[in-house]
Amino acid sequence: MITLYTFTTPNGRKVSILLEELGLPYETKVIDISKGEQFDPAFLAVSPNNKIPALVDDDGDGGKVALFESGAILTYLAEKTGRFLPASGPARYETLAWLHWQIGGLGPMFGQLGFFGVFSKEKIPTAIKRYSEEADRLLGVMERRLASNTYLAGDDYSIADIAVYPWAANASTFLGEFLGESVAAKPAVRRWLENVGSRPAVQRGMAVPKV
Amino acid sequence: MITLYTFTTPNGRKVSILLEELGLPYETKVIDISKGEQFDPAFLAVSPNNKIPALVDDDGDGGKVALFESGAILTYLAEKTGRFLPASGPARYETLAWLHWQIGGLGPMFGQLGFFGVFSKEKIPTAIKRYSEEADRLLGVMERRLASNTYLAGDDYSIADIAVYPWAANASTFLGEFLGESVAAKPAVRRWLENVGSRPAVQRGMAVPKV
Ligand SMILES: N[C@@H](CCC(=O)N[C@@H](CS)C(=O)NCC(=O)O)C(=O)O
Ligand SMILES: N[C@@H](CCC(=O)N[C@@H](CS)C(=O)NCC(=O)O)C(=O)O
Repeated sequence: MITLYTFTTPNGRKVSILLEELGLPYETKVIDISKGEQFDPAFLAVSPNNKIPALVDDDGDGGKVALFESGAILTYLAEKTGRFLPASGPARYETLAWLHWQIGGLGPMFGQLGFFGVFSKEKIPTAIKRYSEEADRLLGVMERRLASNTYLAGDDYSIADIAVYPWAANASTFLGEFLGESVAAKPAVRRWLENVGSRPAVQRGMAVPKV
Repeated sequence: MITLYTFTTPNGRKVSILLEELGLPYETKVIDISKGEQFDPAFLAVSPNNKIPALVDDDGDGGKVALFESGAILTYLAEKTGRFLPASGPARYETLAWLHWQIGGLGPMFGQLGFFGVFSKEKIPTAIKRYSEEADRLLGVMERRLASNTYLAGDDYSIADIAVYPWAANASTFLGEFLGESVAAKPAVRRWLENVGSRPAVQRGMAVPKV
């Protein structure tokens, strides 16, 4: 059995989207990070960095696999099933490059914009400007890529698209005040958002967890 | 031939360390990000996100491989050679989890601390506090992990250690004003820093590029 520890945030939804795409049965455990449940010792044993998502697979590769970090979890599930990440060749590493670009760039920078722009009571213009500009730059990188490729890694839908989707969708909703216009001005990003967002598995995954 | 595009910063040094560990011949191209060379069209063709490191391997898996994002490059070189990343089993995914923890957490958060604490002329207490605390928390996660494991992924030295080392070494030098005491109070982190830092390949990799 696969157990997914998650919450109603982009990093969790990457994993529920992939599980839905794969049709793998899984159980969802809600970790309410707004109530500090990520610091519960039982959860820390699975996720030492006190963040969702985490995943436990009793029937894993070579035994029980317990994993934290969404990028590692996506890679694990893709390799377990042989889907959404080529096993070798340039397309494999193109996929991993764009996956890491989300993990190390788009995710943390959109996250800082959410903190300074939306959550923080103190409004600090320098910080909001820094992260709005960086987020806009990242959307520009995505636009150039998608202007000549159907998907981030090239011709095929992959875990790189799955990693980016919940964050990119946020750009015109949760972060709309800062990034709405930037997205509106990017036809390739919009086409990709519509294309990926119309997949039934993406829609099901985005609705996890029910709280 | 392998060409590494890099500069004198932690994300570049991860790759030179791994290349030195592997004993692979490579050529170094310096991209001086302090002079804006990362925006040069020839470099952007290899690294669409205008950041170092990037790598081109003419003799890659299934043809020429051109890659950006340090985490993807480390994974590529480890899979090319079968070293520092187990091919399967729980230890493979433990390694990828700690690799992604560096890419998505330690790297970006230490980077923000460097920006607000060191580079920015405007000193914003809220931002410096936010990133000092987050960096200290991350060092605490590392301490707990290394208190019961020789290396981040467990018993074996891996690309996760290689990814974290140049950043963790920074904590008592470049970021020493903010994190020096935190590192000093963490015996397992200090033992690991000494252990990893004493490897000849790590010392050679940390000296790349010569500028
Ligand atoms: N790099 C991590 C980031 C995970 C992350 O930031 N999770 C957030 C929710 S989206 C969280 O659990 N925050 C709770 C906390 O930091 O205490 C990943 O991709 O899994
Ligand atoms: N997630 C990326 C981060 C790379 C990165 O931040 N590189 C910095 C130097 S350490 C850079 O090239 N900055 C230049 C710029 O952003 O314009 C990776 O791990 O490769």
